[in-house]
Amino acid sequence: MPKNRETARATLENLYRIFTVPEARHSTLGAIDRAISDDVAGFLQTHIVALEHSLEDIEADFSSSRIPEEPTFVSEYTEFVKEKLVAQSVHTAAPGFIGHMTSALPYFMLPLSRIMTALNQNLVKVETSKAFTPLERQVLAMLHHLVYQADDAFYAHWMHDSRHALGAFCSGGTIANVTALWVARNRLFAADSEFRGIAQEGLVRAMKHLGCEGVAVLASRRGHYSLGKAADLLGIGRDHLVLVETDDDNRIDLALLKETCARLRDENIRPLALVGIAGTTETGNIDPLEAMADIALELDCHFHVDAAWGGPTLFSERHRHLLKGIARADSVTIDAHKQLYVPMGAGMVVFKDPTALSAIEHHAAYILRHGSKDLGSHTLEGSRPGKALLVHAGLSIIGRKGYELLIDLGIERARTFAGMIRRHPDFELTSAPELNILTYRYCPAAVQQALARADSGRSCRINALLDQVNQLVQKIEREAGKTFVSRTRLRVAAYRRKELTVFRVVLANPLTTDAILAEVLDEQCAIVQQPEVAALLRQVEALCAERAAS
Amino acid sequence: MPKNRETARATLENLYRIFTVPEARHSTLGAIDRAISDDVAGFLQTHIVALEHSLEDIEADFSSSRIPEEPTFVSEYTEFVKEKLVAQSVHTAAPGFIGHMTSALPYFMLPLSRIMTALNQNLVKVETSKAFTPLERQVLAMLHHLVYQADDAFYAHWMHDSRHALGAFCSGGTIANVTALWVARNRLFAADSEFRGIAQEGLVRAMKHLGCEGVAVLASRRGHYSLGKAADLLGIGRDHLVLVETDDDNRIDLALLKETCARLRDENIRPLALVGIAGTTETGNIDPLEAMADIALELDCHFHVDAAWGGPTLFSERHRHLLKGIARADSVTIDAHKQLYVPMGAGMVVFKDPTALSAIEHHAAYILRHGSKDLGSHTLEGSRPGKALLVHAGLSIIGRKGYELLIDLGIERARTFAGMIRRHPDFELTSAPELNILTYRYCPAAVQQALARADSGRSCRINALLDQVNQLVQKIEREAGKTFVSRTRLRVAAYRRKELTVFRVVLANPLTTDAILAEVLDEQCAIVQQPEVAALLRQVEALCAERAAS
Repeated sequence: MPKNRETARATLENLYRIFTVPEARHSTLGAIDRAISDDVAGFLQTHIVALEHSLEDIEADFSSSRIPEEPTFVSEYTEFVKEKLVAQSVHTAAPGFIGHMTSALPYFMLPLSRIMTALNQNLVKVETSKAFTPLERQVLAMLHHLVYQADDAFYAHWMHDSRHALGAFCSGGTIANVTALWVARNRLFAADSEFRGIAQEGLVRAMKHLGCEGVAVLASRRGHYSLGKAADLLGIGRDHLVLVETDDDNRIDLALLKETCARLRDENIRPLALVGIAGTTETGNIDPLEAMADIALELDCHFHVDAAWGGPTLFSERHRHLLKGIARADSVTIDAHKQLYVPMGAGMVVFKDPTALSAIEHHAAYILRHGSKDLGSHTLEGSRPGKALLVHAGLSIIGRKGYELLIDLGIERARTFAGMIRRHPDFELTSAPELNILTYRYCPAAVQQALARADSGRSCRINALLDQVNQLVQKIEREAGKTFVSRTRLRVAAYRRKELTVFRVVLANPLTTDAILAEVLDEQCAIVQQPEVAALLRQVEALCAERAAS
Repeated sequence: MPKNRETARATLENLYRIFTVPEARHSTLGAIDRAISDDVAGFLQTHIVALEHSLEDIEADFSSSRIPEEPTFVSEYTEFVKEKLVAQSVHTAAPGFIGHMTSALPYFMLPLSRIMTALNQNLVKVETSKAFTPLERQVLAMLHHLVYQADDAFYAHWMHDSRHALGAFCSGGTIANVTALWVARNRLFAADSEFRGIAQEGLVRAMKHLGCEGVAVLASRRGHYSLGKAADLLGIGRDHLVLVETDDDNRIDLALLKETCARLRDENIRPLALVGIAGTTETGNIDPLEAMADIALELDCHFHVDAAWGGPTLFSERHRHLLKGIARADSVTIDAHKQLYVPMGAGMVVFKDPTALSAIEHHAAYILRHGSKDLGSHTLEGSRPGKALLVHAGLSIIGRKGYELLIDLGIERARTFAGMIRRHPDFELTSAPELNILTYRYCPAAVQQALARADSGRSCRINALLDQVNQLVQKIEREAGKTFVSRTRLRVAAYRRKELTVFRVVLANPLTTDAILAEVLDEQCAIVQQPEVAALLRQVEALCAERAAS
């Protein structure tokens, strides 16, 4: 055989191999696969290195812009993944990683994820998903029931109705929020005898038709940044995302909200949607949903609740009262990859009115034909994986009572940690946990006392230095890789609502113990001894010791 | 211990177990997991039942709207998944499943997916993704290079630039197309000395500022339905998605496009974007990209190429010329879960101008801070999984040459199949394959001859009956579960551009052989013998035999 044809044939055979011959059990990738199956916690513990490399160092391993010409052996590539990627990833499941909303996963999620990946269904249409379509419709109904508690006849009628969907399964909370506001916009500018609807005619003609100067989305200043994206995307403009100040507990200020509504009415700006937050991203607080539902009713506008984080609180008999009023929302976002403990990439939005999603319905000749049960006719996304399986698995295996326990545990642990912070002489609680999120900062008792006495100018200078201290502590702690808290900027009531840099803690990992929380504080106390931080703190002390300027 | 506390403690222990104790290897889920690892093809073959149950039957297993109160054993749940879900899913990887764009996966994708799931990184920010962020930036650069072939200095400068991103990783092609048009819209209505930009001020003020009556997106009638969604979502309105007729080969008719542009100019409607298609969803044809780039330049508008399907044709030295002109596009969509053979849920859009995504940039205090390398500041979605690993793996392990082979094989197989259809007396090719997609229909030679002689009225009646025949054949074939083609409605040149129901075939699975293609035709010929279809065909014959009415 001539050399060329021989090479071509060898390449072709290799190609078939990768589609037909599984990784051998003792191959590098097979071994990793088995190690993860047998003990994912141990695998992550062993393979993710604690000490952080600089991002610039890591980038060096990911710097070629050329797609490799020649194939690489799987074993060689696996070594690269192990050493360069896994080792330098973030141990989001570690019980000391309490800074963000990503937590440990139940073990069964991994093999079920593999089943999902192997089946490679596409939920856009029944032809490529079959049983996964009824499954996803059921999951949406279960979440709908969690929020709205409609009766059996309602679900028997709507759950598998080919022309409708009770909600949309999304890649995350952002798409869920965008979908909710998209529906709200399209319903406000619905078709009538003289107008074919905004979906058809566009926003400019829609506004002319309704005779308003603009439309606004209302939420508190603690609203998720996806609301700003939605306002931009939907053509409303960020100017018309009206963020109302919060009260001292990071909940929307109802008096200010009412004032704002009156002002908008005077300006002939039509409220498109009022957004309540059930678990603000930064502090975990819940807006007064019942009162907001009343206001939305008065305004005759869509009431959306962003419960991406806090939605699963409804599982808890003890705490679900915090979300009172949520059943009056027109739409509710709940993320499954947060407190339903599903791997990254699963959000949902459910609508009270089972026909609401018709406002964004679309069809195509080769799929999504009228009358089909294809879920793709009611989603912003097109092709989508079968992630609903993992939500279904969580709801079935953990059950309502299991999730209740997880929710209750997290809230209890947050209260415990708040107590530890309050009792500690060197820390200051900057937002108490309503759910399982709190914020605090490093601020020694003596400085707290000085701040209480200081005038506004001095207080500002001290806090500016403390901001630097806290920022630095968070950075050093993250780089050391033992524990992790995040940080944000927050207006704090005790400091005349000035914005301060604070640590943010999310307690959703059931494996986080009180001992680990104590270690976090100990580690932070140790970090402030480091020269760079200590120098900043000496400046703080000096400022505190100065005689008052006035 | 009192009974209650004992129960509570037992529940708590169970809860910890699901987070800390892996599935045993001989457990039901462990065994399935191992079976999939060892031989996914065999697993799917064994567990997916071929014969289709009715959707109504399947729905009965997914009909409760209540979240179970009590936890379920994993083993019990796994039995349910096996019998009720897996058995009734679609064997998208079967070599006879040639109706949609979902195909077989290379084996290494499964264990790598497990690594990705176990790490549970969140790409929205470096703090929860670390090395995955540079990895994703590299993947975007590789795709950018595939399309635009910029030099090394360009990528050294931009790939890891904290203020920019060369593209956006998305859950799929729809979000990619929406992102491209969002960027196009925001760049058209950019900020200047008298206007703070559409993102800020909204579409109505933007139009006033530019002094135009409307904006339009132009594409051919074969454009993907996501363009309609984007026009709705972005506030442009579906009326302003102007779909230009195609020529006989399903490519945009350039003369008509120019006429349309002139008409829009007269109406003071500003073209927002011209969209070229590189691989239409239904026929796999490629628009004349070079000529379209010229027109976009003349119009001074954004040129987007939807290469969700056809993008990887650039890997092929023999066929990449078909996409000539793509490097002049301002943005290009490529789906990884299509011809990069990555599991469902991975799309990308790359931008020629590395600063283009600044038009939709957004920030938040607790993440996405200015100066961070967080990719979340330039994506429509928020939290996202580390799917980029799987694209990186494909590009590395399969390599450019491996993908080239896959592309060449698919196109060759489509040509082979087209030849088989042309030579077969009972079938009619309705669109020849330019890439690896073709359409055809059942239409016996005698009927083809009769149609050639028939007047318009009779031709219509015959074709209406043939539409029913083809629809029925497709349905029976799908339900039998041995092979699968999809169907769509297509205007066919040979029939005065009347819309006909046709079979649609996508040949991307390297395991599909010529023998399987022959079986598809054989099976369809057998199906037309079934009484219901045969009855329809007798009506067709009767119509053909009638004396011409005129």
